[in-house]
Amino acid sequence: MSDRTPDACDLLIEAGFVVPVVPHAVVLENHAVAVTDGKIVAVLPVGEARERFRPKQVVARPDAALIPGLVNTHAHNPMTLLRGVADDLPLKVWLQQHIWPIEAAVIGPDFVSDGITLAIAEMLRGGTTCVNENYFFPDVQAATYKRHGFRARVGLPVIDFPTAWAKSDDEYFERAGEVHDQWRDDALIATAFAPHAPYTVNDANFERVRMLADQLDLPVHLHLHETAQEVQQSQEQYGQRPIARLDRLGLFNDRLIAVHMTQLTEAEIHLCAERGVSVVHCPESNLKLASGFCPACALERAGVTLAIGTDGCASNNDLDMFSETRTAALLAKAVAQDAAALDAATSLRAATLGGAKAIGFDHLVGSIEPGKQADLACVDLSALETQPLHHVVSQLVYATGRQQVTDVWIAGQSKLAQCELVDIDMAGVIANARQWRERIVAIRTT
Amino acid sequence: MSDRTPDACDLLIEAGFVVPVVPHAVVLENHAVAVTDGKIVAVLPVGEARERFRPKQVVARPDAALIPGLVNTHAHNPMTLLRGVADDLPLKVWLQQHIWPIEAAVIGPDFVSDGITLAIAEMLRGGTTCVNENYFFPDVQAATYKRHGFRARVGLPVIDFPTAWAKSDDEYFERAGEVHDQWRDDALIATAFAPHAPYTVNDANFERVRMLADQLDLPVHLHLHETAQEVQQSQEQYGQRPIARLDRLGLFNDRLIAVHMTQLTEAEIHLCAERGVSVVHCPESNLKLASGFCPACALERAGVTLAIGTDGCASNNDLDMFSETRTAALLAKAVAQDAAALDAATSLRAATLGGAKAIGFDHLVGSIEPGKQADLACVDLSALETQPLHHVVSQLVYATGRQQVTDVWIAGQSKLAQCELVDIDMAGVIANARQWRERIVAIRTT
Repeated sequence: MSDRTPDACDLLIEAGFVVPVVPHAVVLENHAVAVTDGKIVAVLPVGEARERFRPKQVVARPDAALIPGLVNTHAHNPMTLLRGVADDLPLKVWLQQHIWPIEAAVIGPDFVSDGITLAIAEMLRGGTTCVNENYFFPDVQAATYKRHGFRARVGLPVIDFPTAWAKSDDEYFERAGEVHDQWRDDALIATAFAPHAPYTVNDANFERVRMLADQLDLPVHLHLHETAQEVQQSQEQYGQRPIARLDRLGLFNDRLIAVHMTQLTEAEIHLCAERGVSVVHCPESNLKLASGFCPACALERAGVTLAIGTDGCASNNDLDMFSETRTAALLAKAVAQDAAALDAATSLRAATLGGAKAIGFDHLVGSIEPGKQADLACVDLSALETQPLHHVVSQLVYATGRQQVTDVWIAGQSKLAQCELVDIDMAGVIANARQWRERIVAIRTT
Repeated sequence: MSDRTPDACDLLIEAGFVVPVVPHAVVLENHAVAVTDGKIVAVLPVGEARERFRPKQVVARPDAALIPGLVNTHAHNPMTLLRGVADDLPLKVWLQQHIWPIEAAVIGPDFVSDGITLAIAEMLRGGTTCVNENYFFPDVQAATYKRHGFRARVGLPVIDFPTAWAKSDDEYFERAGEVHDQWRDDALIATAFAPHAPYTVNDANFERVRMLADQLDLPVHLHLHETAQEVQQSQEQYGQRPIARLDRLGLFNDRLIAVHMTQLTEAEIHLCAERGVSVVHCPESNLKLASGFCPACALERAGVTLAIGTDGCASNNDLDMFSETRTAALLAKAVAQDAAALDAATSLRAATLGGAKAIGFDHLVGSIEPGKQADLACVDLSALETQPLHHVVSQLVYATGRQQVTDVWIAGQSKLAQCELVDIDMAGVIANARQWRERIVAIRTT
């Protein structure tokens, strides 16, 4: 025993395995993470931790891996209420005959708030603690995430046509400024510009985004090179591929969070690396909508920050970052024709630190390091489905299901404890989702 | 009330939704399945069922979908003990430096029996009720599946070099005959010839397989066109692609269960349809080993019987047929460049009736129809992750996790009841897997 007086700490989490992500590909056996004031204060062997700290609470999970909370770097979470409403359809039919008419009838603050609450419950149950959100009504989004203590960067939408959120270009930018102002100093919530896509935003609006993003020091969250048609249409309309057009407009830089990126030349991959553009890979959405294959391994090897996102539930149809990370790791190998591509540890890093870096949150989260926020997830590895346990990180990526997540914290606050949501009434959320189903059925049959 | 005397039946399962697979893409709301002597005797509305039957047992699952038990049409289940033992490696390094040396040290009846028992527990917990097994020691496989009341077709291995199972060509065929004889009239277990692959079986052995498969009326379970290298090597060695070579040897016919098939020309796809060859798609294995992309949608549209398999846990790393079916449905769309490819109902059919057809069990299982064996799985759809419930089949394929399986029956025998394994000691199976881990660690460090 040490004769030193133990330090106070709020919480000591003892785990069979701590996977800190930094350093890369390391597994710390029988380690503990000490948390005070929402921050990680130490990562150390369990024995030492028990000597050094006098914690208010101890959570012991000898059969579990403790990982950084997963970062879902591209989502349209209000659309969780449209999960599976229309599947197996060509993109145009899906959007024009199903998604848009339904959205037109339901969109508004209630749809956004209820959809996001359902999404938060699903994300927490699956170990996700942070999201890069992209939808209308960012004011409602921000308030909903804040109310549930969930970390988010919400997108300030910009699109060339009127919507329920704004009627004119000026109104989009005015409302963006208001929402940004309201949340500028929040500990959990931040904003980003979210111009919808190259085919729905004109040069003047992109230029305005660039100017304001520079002034306000905000990232720019954009669907980019999602499909071959997008690239072709840009060449016809602007004589340039979308990336070249964005580069001309001064937006292809380290503020850019480029989502999808299934259509990339070698030169474009290297330009992403040079300019510090982050890429969000949404493998399951890209497969399901037949968009194409993002060269995730080539991007990662070129030095590009690679993140992972689920996309919206209308096109995925879940917010399962374990499944998404696994699909990313599997698909990258076939696309690169290399079984060593995007290995388990690299995929896990993309799902955590990669996402945090892409959205400018890496000083806060994405790894288990002293000084960072205690955004953490505990994953039980004693289940039959992850036995025998030859390699922890391999099991986490290739064999673990999200139902093995037992405990989740955001900024040190318990959000899921022994598989139970701490401050969300799950039955109420499900009942509410069922009401939305009835309402959507009524819309579709009238 | 009817004044007719109710019929006796052993079991009545009432479900919110019955998805019978035949007819295709149908969902029967509030239906019941009556079971007697292990067989389905009726599928009818719950109200009618309660009038018509006087069941010994009623299982009511108003929030669940009842589906045919899933058929895992390609597995190497003893290798479940090697789950995640070596990942993210090129195929040659993976096999030669990891899998083969470990197998050489551990293979034998205990490894086969313990690995299969672990696999059975995992399969049951995930709604799988039938497997097409491919490994050494088919005698031990058959006995293990039988002991647990699990339906299986076990492969009788044929390979050009000596193994722990047989030392010479003659011994492979002798032992195959013995195992076949022992199980020829069993209600749960059947056999198939399982020549390993075109690159490990010479013409003489293939001819012997053809002759005996015809005599004994057995399917032939074969890895085929798995990689581009396999095809290239065959062209160098035999002057033919493997399919052409098998056709010359009289094996490309309706006995053939062709696994992987990532390298196919248009003509080969149509030849599969003409000859009645069944194709087992193992999408996650093909991705993980960077083997290539099976044209699953083109095969299915050409009229080929399409089945789904997980492959072994050393290369997947699970036996999750929900995940595999989802990956099949997603991947097919990107490969076909068509978001309508391999829709949810078609994927579910591949995972059930397709597998049953491929292995010649479709008179027994694969759909919920009177006269078939009661191999059934109940899937809870009330979970938050499958809400709102806009479309049952879509939710089953695109959003359901295997942990939502609550109840499983094989031939009317309860195998999983309210998420608990009925006749397997799960803690014992996990403890045994941990012992194998220790043993394998010891092998690798000596």
